[in-house]
Amino acid sequence: MRRAAAAVLVLALGAVGVLAGSARDPGAAGTLSCWPAGERAAYAAYEAALLGSPTRDKLLEWHQLLGAEPHIAGTPGDLRTIERIEKAFKDMGLEVERHTFWALLARPVGASLEILGPEPLRLDIREQALPQDPFASHPDQTAGWNAYSGSGEITAEIVYANYGAKADFEKLRELGVEVRGRIVLCRYGGNFRGYKVKFAQEAGAAGVVIFTDPSDSGYMKGITYPEGGYSNSTCIERGSINTLPYPGDPLTPGREATENAERLDAKEIALPRIPVQPVGWAAANEILQRMSGPGVPEKWQGGLPLAYRLTGGEGLRLRLRVEQERAIIPTSNVIGMLRGASEPGKMMVIGCHHDAWGCGASDPLAGTIALMEAARAFTDRARAGKRPARTVVFAAWGAEEFGIIGSTEWVERERRRLVKDAVAYINLDMASMGPDFNASTSPSLRRVVEEAAAGVPTARAKDGMTVFQAWSRRSEDPMLAGRPRFGELGGGSDHIGFVCHAGIASTSLGGGGSKGNSYHSTYDTLPWYWKVVGEDYEPALMVSRMTLAVSGRMASAPLLPLDPARYGLETRRQLIDITKRAAEAGVIAAPAMGREVAPELARLEGAALQFEAMARDVDRRLLAAVEAGAISGERLARVNALLIEADRAWLSEEGLPGRPWFKNLYAASDEDSGYAPWTLPLFRRAIEHKDRAALDAAEETYLGVFERLREIVTKIGAEVG
Amino acid sequence: MRRAAAAVLVLALGAVGVLAGSARDPGAAGTLSCWPAGERAAYAAYEAALLGSPTRDKLLEWHQLLGAEPHIAGTPGDLRTIERIEKAFKDMGLEVERHTFWALLARPVGASLEILGPEPLRLDIREQALPQDPFASHPDQTAGWNAYSGSGEITAEIVYANYGAKADFEKLRELGVEVRGRIVLCRYGGNFRGYKVKFAQEAGAAGVVIFTDPSDSGYMKGITYPEGGYSNSTCIERGSINTLPYPGDPLTPGREATENAERLDAKEIALPRIPVQPVGWAAANEILQRMSGPGVPEKWQGGLPLAYRLTGGEGLRLRLRVEQERAIIPTSNVIGMLRGASEPGKMMVIGCHHDAWGCGASDPLAGTIALMEAARAFTDRARAGKRPARTVVFAAWGAEEFGIIGSTEWVERERRRLVKDAVAYINLDMASMGPDFNASTSPSLRRVVEEAAAGVPTARAKDGMTVFQAWSRRSEDPMLAGRPRFGELGGGSDHIGFVCHAGIASTSLGGGGSKGNSYHSTYDTLPWYWKVVGEDYEPALMVSRMTLAVSGRMASAPLLPLDPARYGLETRRQLIDITKRAAEAGVIAAPAMGREVAPELARLEGAALQFEAMARDVDRRLLAAVEAGAISGERLARVNALLIEADRAWLSEEGLPGRPWFKNLYAASDEDSGYAPWTLPLFRRAIEHKDRAALDAAEETYLGVFERLREIVTKIGAEVG
Repeated sequence: MRRAAAAVLVLALGAVGVLAGSARDPGAAGTLSCWPAGERAAYAAYEAALLGSPTRDKLLEWHQLLGAEPHIAGTPGDLRTIERIEKAFKDMGLEVERHTFWALLARPVGASLEILGPEPLRLDIREQALPQDPFASHPDQTAGWNAYSGSGEITAEIVYANYGAKADFEKLRELGVEVRGRIVLCRYGGNFRGYKVKFAQEAGAAGVVIFTDPSDSGYMKGITYPEGGYSNSTCIERGSINTLPYPGDPLTPGREATENAERLDAKEIALPRIPVQPVGWAAANEILQRMSGPGVPEKWQGGLPLAYRLTGGEGLRLRLRVEQERAIIPTSNVIGMLRGASEPGKMMVIGCHHDAWGCGASDPLAGTIALMEAARAFTDRARAGKRPARTVVFAAWGAEEFGIIGSTEWVERERRRLVKDAVAYINLDMASMGPDFNASTSPSLRRVVEEAAAGVPTARAKDGMTVFQAWSRRSEDPMLAGRPRFGELGGGSDHIGFVCHAGIASTSLGGGGSKGNSYHSTYDTLPWYWKVVGEDYEPALMVSRMTLAVSGRMASAPLLPLDPARYGLETRRQLIDITKRAAEAGVIAAPAMGREVAPELARLEGAALQFEAMARDVDRRLLAAVEAGAISGERLARVNALLIEADRAWLSEEGLPGRPWFKNLYAASDEDSGYAPWTLPLFRRAIEHKDRAALDAAEETYLGVFERLREIVTKIGAEVG
Repeated sequence: MRRAAAAVLVLALGAVGVLAGSARDPGAAGTLSCWPAGERAAYAAYEAALLGSPTRDKLLEWHQLLGAEPHIAGTPGDLRTIERIEKAFKDMGLEVERHTFWALLARPVGASLEILGPEPLRLDIREQALPQDPFASHPDQTAGWNAYSGSGEITAEIVYANYGAKADFEKLRELGVEVRGRIVLCRYGGNFRGYKVKFAQEAGAAGVVIFTDPSDSGYMKGITYPEGGYSNSTCIERGSINTLPYPGDPLTPGREATENAERLDAKEIALPRIPVQPVGWAAANEILQRMSGPGVPEKWQGGLPLAYRLTGGEGLRLRLRVEQERAIIPTSNVIGMLRGASEPGKMMVIGCHHDAWGCGASDPLAGTIALMEAARAFTDRARAGKRPARTVVFAAWGAEEFGIIGSTEWVERERRRLVKDAVAYINLDMASMGPDFNASTSPSLRRVVEEAAAGVPTARAKDGMTVFQAWSRRSEDPMLAGRPRFGELGGGSDHIGFVCHAGIASTSLGGGGSKGNSYHSTYDTLPWYWKVVGEDYEPALMVSRMTLAVSGRMASAPLLPLDPARYGLETRRQLIDITKRAAEAGVIAAPAMGREVAPELARLEGAALQFEAMARDVDRRLLAAVEAGAISGERLARVNALLIEADRAWLSEEGLPGRPWFKNLYAASDEDSGYAPWTLPLFRRAIEHKDRAALDAAEETYLGVFERLREIVTKIGAEVG
């Protein structure tokens, strides 16, 4: 039935002629649509040279250089990593800035977890050493910890809270299970770990123990490390539990965390107060097998070999001790700049963080190595005399793991310039994890990503298959037959400052599909990566080339390859989903059969479709003019500025309700899990809060956005003539 | 989307007026529609007395009488059970026959299972004794065994085959995993256990070990026995592995297994040749944790705490020894008859088997106790002077567990009489397992089951809720809003002879929803039942009353409450499903959007709907005539005979292709799993064999059935005048 429904939609859209203009085959000739016909061959040769630059050996070299030791933000290993990147960027001939910021970080001091009782048992909070992987036992590796845990020692009974999601705590309340004063035992997955702690603390819990369940990432998925790639019984997921309503330094929201910046009082901000400890499932099994309370609701059972229970019972108590230090600690972004040949004021930014919870072979280095190879390709070409038209910025971000700090501080410092001059941002966090390409992308960037994908071979390609072909075969867009499905951008990595704070068209590129998990553990090492992702670096080659193809076009195309028309289609797609969710939540009535967008949202649907039709028409005329060389110079510069402005039409100075740092009305992270992208967040929030008035107000606001978009596109149309 | 699709269908049917006649509210007055208005009060009083008869204490007493010891068919415990039932029936005043038959049964002689290697390990093939449950350690309990296993000793490497389904063995072939000469380790679930062995043997396996996986019935479902109700680590599912294409005695298909019957040669029939052993998951865990081969496909992982592997590797060998004796052994059905007051030649049959794999508190006694209470209620009323109009037969079947033998032998003996005179069959196997009522029912019996359900309180009823209300709330029929969803009848219990061999309208009544599993294990005991299902016997009271309400009406209503019109609606429902499956299998093209029945099946759809409209019209006139007392005597007797004949319109003397014993063209068990009901089996088989010509031929055959049905209903109409 879903396939049929999608077919209906395509027919409906087809009937109003909306899709016709964007349904070109990106695999056909002429994908360099933003160049005059006479300049295409030269750019194609340049692009071929860019794409020919990355090699398996250089990727391996970067990986070995940056993955040799643990480098948690603010540690000596972090500083050495910063110096290594700085030197590499300088060696390439980039203009390099080490952008240092002073953020409130956390450091583990000590921790322990014991089961009390007749035979007390101290539980392991470190991974097992493996002879096959010396990196995992590097002396700078840490015990398991969650950054920003409260400090203290508690002894308490246990309550199991499944994934620790909002709904899980509601279920416990409904079942009459007391959380107050107890230690919440919950498993990783389902939401951002910080929310597990937030909800537990709000429910009065004394502490939290979070474990990796074998059904989520362990033996139930496949053979475990070191024989296979999945989490073994001691594997621990580290990670920040900061859920402040803004990313970046906890003490300087909205402004740069310089050494002497004005700061909030660290006691006043909502960081966790209770102790929190992550463990592997061997430790969790010791706890769970001693629990004696009632069985759990159906979906709460995990993969350990026992029936999970809601409570431990009176006879079972845990002693949890966590000591952490919070301090303002300097660390740095490394920013390498390749100045543009003809429009140096405009910036294409490519970024990936460099800090990790251990050696970080996957997180972040599977992306960082692609960043380094992209920088090397551009600078090699520059040395050979060919620079991009616009400035390309290569950013290795610091302290991402603590709360996306480095990139946020840089965006906060540069916001005015970025809003005006940034053409796009590409994020590469953990980008090369497997051969299956994916991209979460702002609507306006989707066309250039598709067109680039049509010219890049897929990883381990057989029969010359392109990324576009493999990607769309694997996940077709239900609304656009034959074309790939994009992800939506939410929170979770360094694109957030660019998209959500500055309104910049962004994309997160990546490859997945390998079988394993070492996420945030001491096993996130080169031997793990070689075993699970492979030693051929084919995924990293694919991602490096995709990065070069997209950023190269964004940096050099005479007409900026931004496609504002796509906001119309994507808004309609979102309204279908919003209708479904709003009806499920009871905020609106379910629409009549065959109607995918509720009548309550019909005005906005109309505005979005009308905008798309009009923008697609202007786009056709614009591309024809560019192809013919009929538009250039100042007129083209004005068009390009308007194209940038179209993405900024979604910005709101006051920001989202309760989260003023989030200024983009199109894309945000969600409020209650930190996991799901909230596209058209004003609607999502109205549904979450079951607030019909807010839903209606949101429609008015978004009608205003489309009004601005129409004005901008009208101006572009006027320039085309 | 599914809800919407159902709505469309109802509208479509509504538009041709088909449903109008059957959409009455069975909760309203007048559900005694098969009586003249003037006789309804008297019957209602009689029914109230019947329903008031069953008590918790008597149910408990039957349960203790019959569940005190293991009683496997053919053993001394079985004989004692037969004698107990015989005495009880006689005490009630029934005419009793001990119907003895001589069938090829199997007896366990010895078995062992060892892991070979540097440290050989003998694996447990018996359940652990539990101080809480002395019944489980009764000296007559057996080790785990699968009846009709081959005998022999083998030593071989291991291959894991998931559920041992047809698709699983195909997957192994596709992956290039060798099965020949190896021991297949597979888990219970997904198909009838006999097919696991059949497919393994066909693939050349040397033997089979079948285990209960904790994800299917153990700790992943809930707390295990004895603390909770789910299978503990030693719990073993016994059971027959006979997959002969007919139920009943393996040596006398189609005829009664009398002592001197003509028999097939036991060496010539397709019973298993290789040794087969069932085990609990503690034993399976010992094997699986020593396996070293490649990981399994995604859905093959079970709930044991390790990554499942396809092969054990060369270093790991099992030694399996099974010794069983196959012999022709007598055992008996116990048939109690209450002769009808005015139509003694017509029979209403109620049955449940009495044999078990152990004490059988659930299987079969959760049904047998309801059979006993139903018999007691009827005979109590008879002693008080009120007998049903038609004869009621209470049948406690023997040797069901070996292959539905006792009931089949009786049906084979009585077939001619049953075809002519049986008004319906109610099966009660394991009927009282929980408070949630369900019924798998022939179309023609659905109306009377619904109407009966409207007058019976649901188990543990609050606010006087009826079975009808609770049942339809829990599972609404997607095609009939506000009315409950019926199951389809396939194989698997003693109704099969009545439905599939004799074409008798049948229903299997039951209640479920309890949390636990002791199926075919030594833990299927009274303590288990009391802990898991409860000591209040509310589910058994509900099922006893439903049995009385349905059978009482079938036995006494002047107009037989059979509703042939429903075959029209149900045929159309099946054609929707057949369209989907045939399109998925590529036998026909997917129909155009919005079309639920393929054009290839449109003639039959039309015939079914036309029949329904016509039969519903006759039904309306008939009910009105009965209500007014305008039809009675010979004319009514002719109508009743025609109503019986309508169910027999589905019979085919030659039977199904390759399975001549199966003579009902409406309902059969499937060919390849023994699990799924095959409704309209000629179509199901054509799809399974991807045989388009057979599909077309099936439509012709079914058009013929509807032609016969139309003739019968036309004759009824003529009687009504």
